[in-house]
Amino acid sequence: MIGNAGLVIQQPTILQPEERSYNGGGIGSSNRMMDFLEEPIPGVGTYDDFNTIDWVREKSRDRDRHREITNKSKESTWALIHSVSDAFSGWLLMLLIGLLSGSLAGLIDISAHWMTDLKEGICTEGLWFNHEHCCWDSKYVTFEDKDKCPKWSSWSQLLISTDEGAFAYIVNYFMYVLWALLFAFLAVSLVKVFAPYACGSGIPEIKTILSGFIIRGYLGKWTLIIKTITLVLAVSSGLSLGKEGPLVHVACCCGNILCHCFNKYRKNEAKRREVLSAAAAAGVSVAFGAPIGGVLFSLEEVSYYFPLKTLWRSFFAALVAAFTLRSINPFGNSRLVLFYVEFHTPWHLFELVPFILLGIFGGLWGALFIRTNIAWCRKRKTTQLGKYPVIEVLVVTAITAILAFPNEYTRMSTSELISELFNDCGLLDSSKLCDYENRFNTSKGDELPDRPAGAGVYSAMWQLALTLIMKIVITIFTFGMKIPSGLFIPSMAVGAIAGRLLGVGMEQLAYYHHDWGIFNSWCSQGADCITPGLYAMVGAAACLGGVTRMTVSLVVIMFELTGGLEYIVPLMAAAMTSKWVADALGREGIYDAHIRLNGYPFLEAKEEFAHKTLAMDVMKPRRNDPLLTVLTQDSMTVEDVETIISETTYSGFPVVVSRESQRLVGFVLRRDLIISIENARKKQDGVVSTSIIYFTEHSPPMPPYTPHTLKLRNILDLSPFTVTDLTPMEIVVDIFRKLGLRQCLVTHNGRLLGIITKKDVLKHIAQMANQDPDSILFN
Amino acid sequence: MIGNAGLVIQQPTILQPEERSYNGGGIGSSNRMMDFLEEPIPGVGTYDDFNTIDWVREKSRDRDRHREITNKSKESTWALIHSVSDAFSGWLLMLLIGLLSGSLAGLIDISAHWMTDLKEGICTEGLWFNHEHCCWDSKYVTFEDKDKCPKWSSWSQLLISTDEGAFAYIVNYFMYVLWALLFAFLAVSLVKVFAPYACGSGIPEIKTILSGFIIRGYLGKWTLIIKTITLVLAVSSGLSLGKEGPLVHVACCCGNILCHCFNKYRKNEAKRREVLSAAAAAGVSVAFGAPIGGVLFSLEEVSYYFPLKTLWRSFFAALVAAFTLRSINPFGNSRLVLFYVEFHTPWHLFELVPFILLGIFGGLWGALFIRTNIAWCRKRKTTQLGKYPVIEVLVVTAITAILAFPNEYTRMSTSELISELFNDCGLLDSSKLCDYENRFNTSKGDELPDRPAGAGVYSAMWQLALTLIMKIVITIFTFGMKIPSGLFIPSMAVGAIAGRLLGVGMEQLAYYHHDWGIFNSWCSQGADCITPGLYAMVGAAACLGGVTRMTVSLVVIMFELTGGLEYIVPLMAAAMTSKWVADALGREGIYDAHIRLNGYPFLEAKEEFAHKTLAMDVMKPRRNDPLLTVLTQDSMTVEDVETIISETTYSGFPVVVSRESQRLVGFVLRRDLIISIENARKKQDGVVSTSIIYFTEHSPPMPPYTPHTLKLRNILDLSPFTVTDLTPMEIVVDIFRKLGLRQCLVTHNGRLLGIITKKDVLKHIAQMANQDPDSILFN
Repeated sequence: MIGNAGLVIQQPTILQPEERSYNGGGIGSSNRMMDFLEEPIPGVGTYDDFNTIDWVREKSRDRDRHREITNKSKESTWALIHSVSDAFSGWLLMLLIGLLSGSLAGLIDISAHWMTDLKEGICTEGLWFNHEHCCWDSKYVTFEDKDKCPKWSSWSQLLISTDEGAFAYIVNYFMYVLWALLFAFLAVSLVKVFAPYACGSGIPEIKTILSGFIIRGYLGKWTLIIKTITLVLAVSSGLSLGKEGPLVHVACCCGNILCHCFNKYRKNEAKRREVLSAAAAAGVSVAFGAPIGGVLFSLEEVSYYFPLKTLWRSFFAALVAAFTLRSINPFGNSRLVLFYVEFHTPWHLFELVPFILLGIFGGLWGALFIRTNIAWCRKRKTTQLGKYPVIEVLVVTAITAILAFPNEYTRMSTSELISELFNDCGLLDSSKLCDYENRFNTSKGDELPDRPAGAGVYSAMWQLALTLIMKIVITIFTFGMKIPSGLFIPSMAVGAIAGRLLGVGMEQLAYYHHDWGIFNSWCSQGADCITPGLYAMVGAAACLGGVTRMTVSLVVIMFELTGGLEYIVPLMAAAMTSKWVADALGREGIYDAHIRLNGYPFLEAKEEFAHKTLAMDVMKPRRNDPLLTVLTQDSMTVEDVETIISETTYSGFPVVVSRESQRLVGFVLRRDLIISIENARKKQDGVVSTSIIYFTEHSPPMPPYTPHTLKLRNILDLSPFTVTDLTPMEIVVDIFRKLGLRQCLVTHNGRLLGIITKKDVLKHIAQMANQDPDSILFN
Repeated sequence: MIGNAGLVIQQPTILQPEERSYNGGGIGSSNRMMDFLEEPIPGVGTYDDFNTIDWVREKSRDRDRHREITNKSKESTWALIHSVSDAFSGWLLMLLIGLLSGSLAGLIDISAHWMTDLKEGICTEGLWFNHEHCCWDSKYVTFEDKDKCPKWSSWSQLLISTDEGAFAYIVNYFMYVLWALLFAFLAVSLVKVFAPYACGSGIPEIKTILSGFIIRGYLGKWTLIIKTITLVLAVSSGLSLGKEGPLVHVACCCGNILCHCFNKYRKNEAKRREVLSAAAAAGVSVAFGAPIGGVLFSLEEVSYYFPLKTLWRSFFAALVAAFTLRSINPFGNSRLVLFYVEFHTPWHLFELVPFILLGIFGGLWGALFIRTNIAWCRKRKTTQLGKYPVIEVLVVTAITAILAFPNEYTRMSTSELISELFNDCGLLDSSKLCDYENRFNTSKGDELPDRPAGAGVYSAMWQLALTLIMKIVITIFTFGMKIPSGLFIPSMAVGAIAGRLLGVGMEQLAYYHHDWGIFNSWCSQGADCITPGLYAMVGAAACLGGVTRMTVSLVVIMFELTGGLEYIVPLMAAAMTSKWVADALGREGIYDAHIRLNGYPFLEAKEEFAHKTLAMDVMKPRRNDPLLTVLTQDSMTVEDVETIISETTYSGFPVVVSRESQRLVGFVLRRDLIISIENARKKQDGVVSTSIIYFTEHSPPMPPYTPHTLKLRNILDLSPFTVTDLTPMEIVVDIFRKLGLRQCLVTHNGRLLGIITKKDVLKHIAQMANQDPDSILFN
């Protein structure tokens, strides 16, 4: 009112509403009014830790900010520059996120590669070379001798100067286990001491944060540093875990930290979440070398509020990250991931049968994994087990390392294993998996006909079968320990092994029985009709799909790994089957299961609420409860309000015209109320316990000698959301979901009846799904 | 209440709400109650033509239906099978849409190819062969002589037995124009007589329909048949138009028609729109051979309500369509589009400068095109011009054909032109564009060094420049005529020509000045450093982006055309620049501009509403208007209500407790009210003009000899959306957008104050943007 005079209103047509709103309208205007009347009270409009944000309010605030900058930009050149730089700051931020997360991913890849090799030996030429780089320009670089270049010393060579015999084997074995234990110990200790939030994959928490929850420090700088370091350690320790999920967390940390450089994003929780969505896309982009897949992953799996603008920016961030990683070239093959592959042979329609079988396997594995892993994690949460994270990690590492060393497929890093399984045996491949008979009597370039398997293939099959069993069991106990641990790679490994086994089986079947009806139409003798590597890839997709329930993003990620539209149909068939099978056995993906395990308030956007309850069944107060606690707009004293605050724990109170009429005026948040009253008592003269609090536009003239009144209309939300008591809950859930509400008031024929909070909604959903409603811990 | 007895309630825990809701709760239950009490009144719950649907109601109805099926499925095996088949019907529908739209696209491609060639001559071996197929196995199939195979006769050969000399040229010229006119005449007449909705690209209307508008017949079988036929005719006539946009319309028609086979989709407007979104994805998928791009196009550009389930299904439909088209193989190259291309040379960072220049060109072209095209279309709408669509089409066709024939680049079909422009000149290319000097003195396989341009290239440059001017001018007048006409291909052609011109210029610059600082770091003599085809592609993306303002989907479509991640950055740089430049000159893309031109009620989801108005500024009644027309819940007679209906044109009325209290009970739709009263007067004994209408749960006992009461609670929406009068409009707009509302009631301190309809919101947005609010024609 006072400040209004100083404003030059430029558009007379919209004068009326502008003017009115300065006099105390809607949500947005309250901030503006405070700018003129007084300094904004610090803390009003912020949130407590472990609380849910109000999307509507945050977005309103951003629009206010934007409007102010736009209006000012007409006034001076400087303001115009400010306005333009504000508009482009989002793009700049995306660029920075892409660069930073791409670089970190490259760093992690290189260090993990080096440290993984450290378990087996060191490069005598330069300690900083990994095995591959060490032997890069060695003259012994034919394929058989690649592993035996003189510059590379295994630990037995180094310690006892020989690589032969049982003792050397034992030395190597011992060193392998020792290094693994050392890495694991370092990882878990660092996590425990410096950044407890750095453990796990982080995706469940990021999903929750993106849906509007606040976990302070989860995306902070300590988490970033410790997670980056411990991720390398954890991956190098040879545990059955991957770096892909944690990379998403790392990218989101980058995003969150970089937000602090830009006012626009630092101060607004909703805007910051847009950035985090894009950062998640960048994370997947570098994890799998799949920028489009990353964007779709962010859209499908983790994001909650994903406007089109974010789509475009996510895509940009994902691309920048991918190109940064490519220019670092961590694998020396100008690919972004170790397991990039190109297939050459088309698939045949009949092969859909084994692909669907792989889908069923993937679905079963997914359901089994989720169930057992959650049971184990619950045990960890509720029993003594959870108190000894270091010992748990060391025990699991020891078992993994001891079991892993004797089998070459478990000894190598999981992504190398996947790379080998995906690989289509070429002419010059020397690995056991490619040890087919009559290896060299062919001519047609890359295309090799199906051939009988040699001894190497058979022994590889046995080893792979053992690897499969070990991976299945050990991953269940690994995921959820107090170290950074991703799930993508172990799941893919399980699927890839199963797929390769089936693929080789099919290949041999086709070779020996090419006269069978199902084969002879398309698989003549001497033709290359079955690609076991493709089976491995399909299996990997199926298992990953079963565990995470990703669909489109999964197929697109796999598509970007193979680079051929041709193979989308097998992947899609497997992913669909896997999702259907797994859904039939349990609706939740692993991330949702972990969200529920931790009691986070996450309102799933994918599931429709299918029950026929009404708002009045969910609202508080219930039928026999005391009446709803309300404030009146012009008759309560400071003391009354303070009593109400101290006696209740509600996070907000409706304001009504009078107790009798119960006609709703607005809604005020507990936190804002406490801060404002405290502030007024400190700074405003004459505000005492008997002062009357006014939420109305004008306080009536008071008789002299009465205490000063306290006007709090500026913290009052004048447009609270209301529904009628007969509104079906399905609609209420939809409103909460789509608008991102924290609470909603319930009315009957215009009178205020009750309130529904997000927690109430979640509890109700849990109850309707026959789950424990008390598992929802936060508001 | 009566019917309740017949229900076996199986879950006692939720008995209470179920029971209550049968007694007349929420939206959904009203349908249920009617099932028991009486036959549902036919027509209640349907919509008039050119009206907006209520998404909330439609989704509620679908959930009711689904719930009913799920509940019944426990009762018998048959019901279980019904439930499963219901769940899978969506997938089956997608499969059918994919198959049908893929087949239609193949058919259109093949026929258009054949008819385009018909303008130049016929195959004497078989009339049904096009030029390429005709000369397929001819022995004269070296590259120079490809056009002169003996089986193919040009019209002059056929009519005057020679192909040489001026007279032959004139005969060919004449026949070319004649065929073009014939095709165009057929196309415009068929459209005019049989299916007026078949004209244009259809995308603006599909966007509007997907946002919840009803245009009966727009996606019907006649539109499908006529659009398919006339599309072939229009493309073959040589007009400057493409088949890509109309293919989306064709796919949506397929989707809509196939919906009729499934109860789930036939009866529910919201569910049907999910299917249409997927069909649009399938349409783009076959238009560009880009399934992922298609899905993103549907998501980014046309869809309004796009739940994740739809994403997954769209993807499936898009893939099926792509594979169907591929198995038809219309171009004989196992590619889905004529202009698929693979580049081999990487690009250099410095080249971003020309790419950004192309982006600026694209943006300018986009803005210019939209402005002039809209001005021309407005002229067509408002002047006499619009009354002679046939003559208009014939004149434009004649001009196009007469100008096109002498220049080989305008004579060939536009997609062939694009294909040629995208092409990276290989060793054996014989086209004029590849007529470089020292063509054959090279060795390195596909990679050719940059070479000086020969005479052919220079003459091609001139012809291309003329083509560019002609395409720019003629497209403005072509798009919007009463024939099927897509915009993608002409836009891409404009950009591709500009890009190729710039690319060849750059190439020659680099060749002759490879010692310049900017070149010598990366472009040594004899190296292949500049690919003019890539410039053409970047230019095409830029122009398409400028016109449509697509972003991610555009880049992904282009990415799927090239198949290399490498080239995403140039494409993205150009697309971004183009969008920014074009946005600076006018916010709307061509589709939005056409939507506004036609006055459709489309609530744009991309733009934030940035003004500071409140709900009270928008609601009806305005300050000086008469009071809001309301019904009371228990005191109005049939006659009163009929008077109100006849005196007003509102599409719905709020129901209040009493006129004095103005406390809101619910909302009733005009259409439902009219139908119900009519129905009651016909079928219910004792309902006369003086009968009192009750919207309450129980009608009070009436004294004897008073007329029967009419109970209408079942058509009352008991959970109308309300906002307070002080709610900022930005929030109201958001609610309308996200929940898909038709109207929203406005209250002040619990009293009903007014109403805001979607039309009011749109008018307000138009007003705030300084546009004519009366351009919004429909509700």
